[in-house]
Amino acid sequence: MTGVDILGYSAGAITSLTFLPQVIKTWKEKSAKDISLLMFVIAAVNEVMWIVYGALLNNWVIILTNAIVLAMSLTMIYLKFRYK
Amino acid sequence: MTGVDILGYSAGAITSLTFLPQVIKTWKEKSAKDISLLMFVIAAVNEVMWIVYGALLNNWVIILTNAIVLAMSLTMIYLKFRYK
Repeated sequence: MTGVDILGYSAGAITSLTFLPQVIKTWKEKSAKDISLLMFVIAAVNEVMWIVYGALLNNWVIILTNAIVLAMSLTMIYLKFRYK
Repeated sequence: MTGVDILGYSAGAITSLTFLPQVIKTWKEKSAKDISLLMFVIAAVNEVMWIVYGALLNNWVIILTNAIVLAMSLTMIYLKFRYK
């Protein structure tokens, strides 16, 4: 594995966790007024596209990374409706 | 260009615009209390990693997509400090 590969995998790992602080904050504070529902709907649809793309290329890194972000996006959509 | 390529480019184009509805909402409503600063700081650092990765691979799709998301993440960080 080259240094470029390691950078790519590290970046991918961090990408998959990007939404986590927002999920934790909204969950704890029970307030989602300032959150854009559209952003997380676009993100969820987009991640389904990436998962299909990963499946067509048989690339599990793309599939798994985007499955994690999809789960967090759906959680944010749920929290937005619950705590709007 | 195959159907798989078209799906990948379409997914990438949508990814680059994911944060836009949040930027517009926060800009209009002048309220960012519910926004996670940490999420956008992680996103910004992560996009710099992706831009370096894209530069090392000489891949302009990766560079440009992440430069757009980086600009929106930095805008959200600014809005978070301005309208906390």
